[in-house]
Amino acid sequence: MAGNSFGQIFKLTTYGESHGSAIGGIIDGCPAGLKIDSDFIQKELDRRKPGQSHITTQRKESDTVEFLSGIFEGLTTGTPIGFIIKNQNQKSSDYQHLKDNYRPSHADFTYQQKYGVRDYRGGGRSSARETACRIVGGAIAKLILNTKNISIHAFVKQVGHIKLNKTFEELDLSNIENTLVRCPDDEVAQQMITYIEHIKKQGNTIGGIVQCVIQNAPVGLGEPVFDKLHAVLGHAMLSINAVKGFEIGSGFDSINKTGAELNDVFVPTNKQINNKHQTTYTNNSGGIQGGISNGMPIYFNVAFKPVATIMQNQASINTKGQAINLEAKGRHDPCVLPRAVPIVESMAALVMVDFLLLNAVNKIGTV
Amino acid sequence: MAGNSFGQIFKLTTYGESHGSAIGGIIDGCPAGLKIDSDFIQKELDRRKPGQSHITTQRKESDTVEFLSGIFEGLTTGTPIGFIIKNQNQKSSDYQHLKDNYRPSHADFTYQQKYGVRDYRGGGRSSARETACRIVGGAIAKLILNTKNISIHAFVKQVGHIKLNKTFEELDLSNIENTLVRCPDDEVAQQMITYIEHIKKQGNTIGGIVQCVIQNAPVGLGEPVFDKLHAVLGHAMLSINAVKGFEIGSGFDSINKTGAELNDVFVPTNKQINNKHQTTYTNNSGGIQGGISNGMPIYFNVAFKPVATIMQNQASINTKGQAINLEAKGRHDPCVLPRAVPIVESMAALVMVDFLLLNAVNKIGTV
Amino acid sequence: MAGNSFGQIFKLTTYGESHGSAIGGIIDGCPAGLKIDSDFIQKELDRRKPGQSHITTQRKESDTVEFLSGIFEGLTTGTPIGFIIKNQNQKSSDYQHLKDNYRPSHADFTYQQKYGVRDYRGGGRSSARETACRIVGGAIAKLILNTKNISIHAFVKQVGHIKLNKTFEELDLSNIENTLVRCPDDEVAQQMITYIEHIKKQGNTIGGIVQCVIQNAPVGLGEPVFDKLHAVLGHAMLSINAVKGFEIGSGFDSINKTGAELNDVFVPTNKQINNKHQTTYTNNSGGIQGGISNGMPIYFNVAFKPVATIMQNQASINTKGQAINLEAKGRHDPCVLPRAVPIVESMAALVMVDFLLLNAVNKIGTV
Amino acid sequence: MAGNSFGQIFKLTTYGESHGSAIGGIIDGCPAGLKIDSDFIQKELDRRKPGQSHITTQRKESDTVEFLSGIFEGLTTGTPIGFIIKNQNQKSSDYQHLKDNYRPSHADFTYQQKYGVRDYRGGGRSSARETACRIVGGAIAKLILNTKNISIHAFVKQVGHIKLNKTFEELDLSNIENTLVRCPDDEVAQQMITYIEHIKKQGNTIGGIVQCVIQNAPVGLGEPVFDKLHAVLGHAMLSINAVKGFEIGSGFDSINKTGAELNDVFVPTNKQINNKHQTTYTNNSGGIQGGISNGMPIYFNVAFKPVATIMQNQASINTKGQAINLEAKGRHDPCVLPRAVPIVESMAALVMVDFLLLNAVNKIGTV
Repeated sequence: MAGNSFGQIFKLTTYGESHGSAIGGIIDGCPAGLKIDSDFIQKELDRRKPGQSHITTQRKESDTVEFLSGIFEGLTTGTPIGFIIKNQNQKSSDYQHLKDNYRPSHADFTYQQKYGVRDYRGGGRSSARETACRIVGGAIAKLILNTKNISIHAFVKQVGHIKLNKTFEELDLSNIENTLVRCPDDEVAQQMITYIEHIKKQGNTIGGIVQCVIQNAPVGLGEPVFDKLHAVLGHAMLSINAVKGFEIGSGFDSINKTGAELNDVFVPTNKQINNKHQTTYTNNSGGIQGGISNGMPIYFNVAFKPVATIMQNQASINTKGQAINLEAKGRHDPCVLPRAVPIVESMAALVMVDFLLLNAVNKIGTV
Repeated sequence: MAGNSFGQIFKLTTYGESHGSAIGGIIDGCPAGLKIDSDFIQKELDRRKPGQSHITTQRKESDTVEFLSGIFEGLTTGTPIGFIIKNQNQKSSDYQHLKDNYRPSHADFTYQQKYGVRDYRGGGRSSARETACRIVGGAIAKLILNTKNISIHAFVKQVGHIKLNKTFEELDLSNIENTLVRCPDDEVAQQMITYIEHIKKQGNTIGGIVQCVIQNAPVGLGEPVFDKLHAVLGHAMLSINAVKGFEIGSGFDSINKTGAELNDVFVPTNKQINNKHQTTYTNNSGGIQGGISNGMPIYFNVAFKPVATIMQNQASINTKGQAINLEAKGRHDPCVLPRAVPIVESMAALVMVDFLLLNAVNKIGTV
Repeated sequence: MAGNSFGQIFKLTTYGESHGSAIGGIIDGCPAGLKIDSDFIQKELDRRKPGQSHITTQRKESDTVEFLSGIFEGLTTGTPIGFIIKNQNQKSSDYQHLKDNYRPSHADFTYQQKYGVRDYRGGGRSSARETACRIVGGAIAKLILNTKNISIHAFVKQVGHIKLNKTFEELDLSNIENTLVRCPDDEVAQQMITYIEHIKKQGNTIGGIVQCVIQNAPVGLGEPVFDKLHAVLGHAMLSINAVKGFEIGSGFDSINKTGAELNDVFVPTNKQINNKHQTTYTNNSGGIQGGISNGMPIYFNVAFKPVATIMQNQASINTKGQAINLEAKGRHDPCVLPRAVPIVESMAALVMVDFLLLNAVNKIGTV
Repeated sequence: MAGNSFGQIFKLTTYGESHGSAIGGIIDGCPAGLKIDSDFIQKELDRRKPGQSHITTQRKESDTVEFLSGIFEGLTTGTPIGFIIKNQNQKSSDYQHLKDNYRPSHADFTYQQKYGVRDYRGGGRSSARETACRIVGGAIAKLILNTKNISIHAFVKQVGHIKLNKTFEELDLSNIENTLVRCPDDEVAQQMITYIEHIKKQGNTIGGIVQCVIQNAPVGLGEPVFDKLHAVLGHAMLSINAVKGFEIGSGFDSINKTGAELNDVFVPTNKQINNKHQTTYTNNSGGIQGGISNGMPIYFNVAFKPVATIMQNQASINTKGQAINLEAKGRHDPCVLPRAVPIVESMAALVMVDFLLLNAVNKIGTV
């Protein structure tokens, strides 16, 4: 209800403010008997953590997760998994000036109006620091997906005007982590990095697009009508800080084609494309038809705006509504895209596991 | 869970197949004492119903809604509102050939795989006929929003390459219903209609963009983290048949600007813009900051693909996976955009009412 | 939220007032491929329907259910099952005097205060007529349980001071339907009937106890902590009109024994009791330990008060709070116990199916 | 879904095992602006904590709660309240023998069967240690109820055969905390204590009844049909460890009266009883009619069995199903009733706050 839980059977609930003592959460509904690979989970957190390179914010957080319950001798027990990540590098004094001021395009104003009170330090609950907890949930979800051979890869497809003009099939997705910017094409990655360095020097910020690809998902995931697979994926992605748009498969570009051009023709089962069986010749559907996965790769784009925190002075107002000059302070990411990649993957993993569990009871024979 | 409900406090649950005896639903959580304007509800249904003009499908359905409970002497009683819309113009024989065949980019294949059984007549549950029930829920939601002076207007912004190059502030939104295509600019509307007629003659289909504008929403709607207002709006829109993309405010175009350019600067409360108070000078945020409405108009775009049913023969497969030639049959919309307008509005209304109710208990003073 | 839905995966939502045009509901989350036995469902409805014998109310309702969706060629399709039961024998004029008056121990007063408006005809939504919809949901749930060989039997254990002093193991549960009062012991049944006839002549009412036994439930149903199997069974039973108490296994009588006396000692797996394997020698636990079924029969008692509608004049107040004399009018059950038996079974079936589905995804190996 | 959350708008989710590093939880949906009285919350925890007197278990836990989020400068902020209670006095070695053995009437067997793995130390998740988290949630709920002057008092009404034969109206509820056993009648309290001492010497255990009284609740709380106020209260109480029965108002005793005797006659509004206005002369309804509070005191009884852990050797089985002799070990409560009192109150508080919030949006005028 109050928006701090995600998922139905496999449910993540999170808590925590950017400058409170800790953030954390509870994963409820995780099947028992799952082997927990702590190194993998911490590695996923490291992909998101601040200070990982010169093109991210310099806030230093080890983002070490501590599991408090639900795991016994390395296996999940079916009971809720409580976890905590202690905040370490709060510089709340950097945010003292925000007590009485609102930053443009931040949540300062809306939180204050909605609740009548707010933890102004570092944006409090509205800070993207909260997404570290999504990584923990997503990493455990990925461990479940691994047992089904379902893989999820996200990468940076565009930063400002720098665009990767290749389809995911043309890319080596195993190269994503080899570049600071998490773009699998080395050449384009370098252009993106150079551009982000340029933006950073200006104390400015820039947005872009993350593409996510889910492979080997079984046919049948997603629920008809209101909880179509791409509707819930869209919900998940749009809940990430700074996201402004979502498109599945051919997305907004679908407008430029007719039905006759866009329809994905089925491959007869006795035919093979490039030595492998696939469901349809083309994949404008993005792996989803009627809201349900069809066996083809699921792919979607997520648009991130440039984050609102810039290192430039800005006109704004204070909590009394009076004009002020807001001085640039604190630490910030010139471009959140590289750190957003594991967040996108984590949210996708949460969605996929939830539908996988739900789908397990869809037929009378398997109940 | 199974995806046939939408909303948390104000909850719509629907049932019904395209060629079953009826479709219908239950609205639970509607506050008591709401005056039900039956004419308005039926008029909303008429905006969506098939056969309303020469550029829509010719299936004839009166789409008459009958309320079965929850309303007494013209007022809601706080108990669940059951309603039914009887199907009238089923031509199921048109769909007999689908028993053993799968149509490209339809849900035939995925439903069969997911459930092992399907009602193949007219697409069954996957037919957009189900959206009539959303109109009923949305119309009642609008009656609640009316009591708060909150208005919702959607319109067709683009059909194929024909694009309305004006912002919603530059348009006369009261003119939307005056054109068959529900585009408020008469000249562009005529171009769209001519283009749809052209597409129809080819037995082809075309997609486009619907823009939706919500005005006078109070500050404070939306919940932090997972249920941000635009995340739930995105979920709602992406659950509509044929939708492939969603963007809030500056959306995908946010990529082309820096943070310094995109940030919405607050207007001091003692200033007026065009003789009225507004929160920010610009509105790239689309009326939502940190997932919570900020008092500015909320606007978003919804991308619809061309519908998959075309009046052309297509290659496909049968349920045994063998290649077949699928003959063009049945009735279809060359372009769903005009009929999608009230559906977009209805889903938006459901979201807004739910958050309005939820927000009523967010502060200790108002409980 | 608003209390008209029950269940999580297998979810029943109902609507309808006693004297509206119809009652009905939606069953969402029913697995696909279930064979629907319409005769069985109608027979279950007949067990609850009014006018079935001289010891029940004489309101005449055929309680014929019509399914509107979710079933195709005799099988469930996985989509929501909409159904409707039309009201036929409304005598709303009998209730006109209730427009301005409140009946003692009815919901007239509380509904009016809560909602500010109410459908006073026959109690509106608060009438037990609503439970007919629970029978439909419960009957479909029973069809699922049948595929697992899980059986549910409820019977009348006590009416006023007339008590059946036998355990369920000592009774022939197949004899329940052979007596008008649904007590499997012919002699006690006859005493109960005679007593109810006596109460009826006085225009009075009497309560009693229904016992319910669930056999062959697998080990593992129920969720720890808040959704213990007996907690949800209790919730289900206490939601039935006129229910005032619930006890599982040894129940309130547990107070009269020490732990050493009450503990259920496990039977080693190589031992047999009465030629069959069972989990524990005794069953004070009522088949549930730690909130989870343990393989023994699940049994519980449900206490029903005498219904509030009596055929005697009573002192009461009108909607203005003034003293009135309320004349006896309308039709009523002198004792609801016989008709409550299938309602108790239905609610139990809904609970068991929901936990059965939920339990299917509790271990990583079965996902 | 997985049973570790309670409530809809005001939702408590808990985690933690008896002998893990910590237990804790998240309270989501708490209205903003609530003044948090930490001393009161800790005092509530102290009422439940082990080792508080010679008639409770001697496990030593300070049960100190640490709040991690959602509270800023002493006020709730509307964001989720994360909290943690570290375990201190685990003596896991006491439980090593349970790794391969099942205790009678415990959850060892059912957890193992359900999940295939279990944390056997001290009962893991099935331990009543988890209820400390309910106290935290309940204490915050009480702070909200305080702002509405709604009070909740539970007390021990019966221990074994020692029974308090007075109604709650005849008792001085302010005396509850003055006796070790939390029975407000000093004389009966002393009898109970003496009896518990006697039971303890035998290494045995005894159960009893807790009665709970909720005063000053407004008319209108509770939702019709499935979520009747007493149905959700029953769910809440039956979810507490060792609870076997629940009855509202006249409860099981309703069987012994006719409708004419049991109906609660309304007091005309111009009459006063004992110098105060009340809704009905009698209160067999227990303050709830049609599932909705009617303004009279709400009262109910909760039956606790003697806890299963006894300090006597018992026959049992090991995980292979073989007969074993289970030696008495560990620490235990001879009677959980005194410590159960604050748990009953806490669960009642959670229910009442949730319905209070939900009821705030039941009428169109108050939305």
